[in-house]
Amino acid sequence: MSLTQRFRTSLALLTDMYQLTMAQGYWKKGMADQEAVFHLYFRKNPFKGGYTLCAGLEDAIDLLQNFGFTEEDVAYLGSLKGSQGQVLFEEGFLQHLRELQFTCDVEAIPEGTAVFPNEPLLRIKGPILQCQLLETPLLTILNFQTLVATKAARVVDAAQGDTVIEFGMRRAQGPDGAISAARAAFIGGVKATSNMLAGKLFAIPVKGTHAHSWVMSFERESEAFSAYGDVFPHDSVFLVDTYNTLEGVKKAIAVASKMRAQGGELRGIRLDSGDLAYLSIEARKLLDAAGFEKVAILGSNDLDEHLIQSLKQQGAKIDTWGIGTKLVTAYDQPALGGVYKLAALKKDDQDWEYKLKLSEQLVKISTPGILQVRRFYRNNSPIGDMIFSEPQQVQAPATMVHPNDPTQRKTFQDDCTFEDLLVPVFQKGKLTYTSPSLLEIQERAARQVALLHETYRRFLNPHIYKVGLEAQLHEKKMALIVKFREEGASHKD
Amino acid sequence: MSLTQRFRTSLALLTDMYQLTMAQGYWKKGMADQEAVFHLYFRKNPFKGGYTLCAGLEDAIDLLQNFGFTEEDVAYLGSLKGSQGQVLFEEGFLQHLRELQFTCDVEAIPEGTAVFPNEPLLRIKGPILQCQLLETPLLTILNFQTLVATKAARVVDAAQGDTVIEFGMRRAQGPDGAISAARAAFIGGVKATSNMLAGKLFAIPVKGTHAHSWVMSFERESEAFSAYGDVFPHDSVFLVDTYNTLEGVKKAIAVASKMRAQGGELRGIRLDSGDLAYLSIEARKLLDAAGFEKVAILGSNDLDEHLIQSLKQQGAKIDTWGIGTKLVTAYDQPALGGVYKLAALKKDDQDWEYKLKLSEQLVKISTPGILQVRRFYRNNSPIGDMIFSEPQQVQAPATMVHPNDPTQRKTFQDDCTFEDLLVPVFQKGKLTYTSPSLLEIQERAARQVALLHETYRRFLNPHIYKVGLEAQLHEKKMALIVKFREEGASHKD
Repeated sequence: MSLTQRFRTSLALLTDMYQLTMAQGYWKKGMADQEAVFHLYFRKNPFKGGYTLCAGLEDAIDLLQNFGFTEEDVAYLGSLKGSQGQVLFEEGFLQHLRELQFTCDVEAIPEGTAVFPNEPLLRIKGPILQCQLLETPLLTILNFQTLVATKAARVVDAAQGDTVIEFGMRRAQGPDGAISAARAAFIGGVKATSNMLAGKLFAIPVKGTHAHSWVMSFERESEAFSAYGDVFPHDSVFLVDTYNTLEGVKKAIAVASKMRAQGGELRGIRLDSGDLAYLSIEARKLLDAAGFEKVAILGSNDLDEHLIQSLKQQGAKIDTWGIGTKLVTAYDQPALGGVYKLAALKKDDQDWEYKLKLSEQLVKISTPGILQVRRFYRNNSPIGDMIFSEPQQVQAPATMVHPNDPTQRKTFQDDCTFEDLLVPVFQKGKLTYTSPSLLEIQERAARQVALLHETYRRFLNPHIYKVGLEAQLHEKKMALIVKFREEGASHKD
Repeated sequence: MSLTQRFRTSLALLTDMYQLTMAQGYWKKGMADQEAVFHLYFRKNPFKGGYTLCAGLEDAIDLLQNFGFTEEDVAYLGSLKGSQGQVLFEEGFLQHLRELQFTCDVEAIPEGTAVFPNEPLLRIKGPILQCQLLETPLLTILNFQTLVATKAARVVDAAQGDTVIEFGMRRAQGPDGAISAARAAFIGGVKATSNMLAGKLFAIPVKGTHAHSWVMSFERESEAFSAYGDVFPHDSVFLVDTYNTLEGVKKAIAVASKMRAQGGELRGIRLDSGDLAYLSIEARKLLDAAGFEKVAILGSNDLDEHLIQSLKQQGAKIDTWGIGTKLVTAYDQPALGGVYKLAALKKDDQDWEYKLKLSEQLVKISTPGILQVRRFYRNNSPIGDMIFSEPQQVQAPATMVHPNDPTQRKTFQDDCTFEDLLVPVFQKGKLTYTSPSLLEIQERAARQVALLHETYRRFLNPHIYKVGLEAQLHEKKMALIVKFREEGASHKD
């Protein structure tokens, strides 16, 4: 089906095949409505960083609200054949899907919150069949937007208050890669996007300059600048590197003087190649000497947080940063390894049985329970996050244990304040949460990052923010690991 | 706007802001209908490889066929304000957009063709305003799908005839990142996807196993296998590493024996962690000893072409490869640096003026003209590609010059056969091309890769396939560079 039709369909099938085969299995075995708890979390901050900025919840909510199989979806599933040519999904199961409604409880950490490894960003509780089907799309949405929001926050941090603009559509991973990235980058603190569709869809401010092709379509560079300045007397940013950057700056200044004489004012120039440190310093001198102190210098050309930091250290006179490829694809780590793990199952209508996924590496073993994250503060500064299971009461002083090194512990006294990060989003399938505006999310993100001490924010070997398991939960997890390891190694099964 | 609504809109605004400001500039300056030629090409094979597999044309065609601004798009543009609070896009221009119809000529290289740096994958000729607006979406679509198709071809090559399945939706860059990647991966030779929506949209075969959560939702691993085998007696692949891999294999064998006794047959087991070389060899021994020689072993866990090659060298007994993150995000190079450059402009209604974009680096200077790519063959093997400008006749013997090193030349005698790679797609805005089926594209890709000598296909320091500029074109380009460099450095402008 064509690109323009691709999303004009139900998104119920935006999931992995095995979710549907397992769903038929649960249905067939009478387990479809067995209550389960799954958590979505990641194991490592991306980009070797010290924090992560969560994003994507509003899109995830939209997906959940619109969850449901259309007749077309069911017909597609009914058409699939097994290896013997037999129907793979049987009619009773397809009927179950036709009638399926989303009835889960969802708690999640609001978008724009600083989060850390092992913390559930989202918890879903409800019929296991539903939870299972939703694993893949929830991961797809939250993994990518969280990744890009985090990258954007790092870039914005490196820019030290300068304006950062997202320019990456042409190198994004497909049309929605561009659109989702524009949304997430705005959350991370980018001030505008070049992506007009994202601008229209999300009311993100849009910005743009002009391309080399504009200059090349005129006989002379000055002529191109003059023409552009005529059309946008107050909103022109001239790209000056088509032929020779510093000569281009001089031509831009000449045109800017004429614009000023006619009541206009050049907004900026853009440098897109060459040694941005040297060229921006020289361009600034030329502009200032000609009385254009307020004309901005926009730098672009495969920039990321490390290059911005380096250019700043070299004294580059760039005050607006256009960031493309490296931001929208999260180039140095293009995927967040978020996972979604079963953590509890109701065995009868009363008791929760805690579940975990074993691994030879402790760091990859999931945490059982019905989890919540409590962030402790002293003097309004976050000092540690404790993951606990809600059915267990936690009182001060509360002790937590390092998730991968049980010898490290931390106790929070009752002089700490705290907040629980996961908030109710759906109750029995009904939306109970109002998403903030994208601008509010951006503001929240900026406050959250500002609360983190700069040692957590530096790019090289950042300080590790403390996240632990509440002591009782830790004990329970250790006991379960031992039990499952024994069972797994035995032949009695 | 929400995820589910995101693409239920016109895609005319799926472009960069500056395309629209330049468009208003062209319109205002009476240049909107000036004929231009742009080429879309990349400068380096991705993944340090020796070839690239182009993909995405069908989606690009869909975009072009549906090109047009809706009232909603125009209203959005009309609402945008400049820095002085003035309207940014004026009514006359908006009316021009309302009436705009796609009227360009497009030539492109068919999907699934092996292509090389500097070769235009797409050439568009038509009113400069239209060409300009289309730059960004064409790049977005072709860059990403070409990247993933190439990655898939490398993975499939490493798998030496084994089945490769694409599993990556959860780590993809947004919902369409997953869907576009599934399409492109299929072109590159992947046999199936786990992505049900891609399966439905493109009729790609879908495959899946089950997750750890299936096993964890039963008291015992054997019970989980038995239950799954009951539901899918001919289509079960058991994931055996939830607790202890080799014990899991033994349990899978016990269940497989019961399935066989009841007329079923286990299809395979999946290994998703640990030492895949060792575990697959041991699992194979256990399966074979129990009479399950045909039960497949599927390996997954952050695999890519290099790991597959290494596992093969270690004698791993994996016969089906599930590839996720590294494929759908093209992890080691998540963007193809495709560009789109103005190459010619009609100055009056008669003559084409050739255009190029200067750069201090020769490799980054674009090639002027109205370009075509001629691939020469000897004994059905491609021996070199010559880029030439169509208005200039080329006759054998034809000499081409290395694009970045004028001292290297190659001449094709008339004992060579050749084909011109760019084929007509649109003429005056009318589609004249019929896209092959996705399966036909996949078959073409396989033939194209097979035609390349293995030295071009190896992963480490591949042989460089020869691409050059036809000698007259080369001379013309060099003369233009000198001319523009002189002009760019001068103050006379």
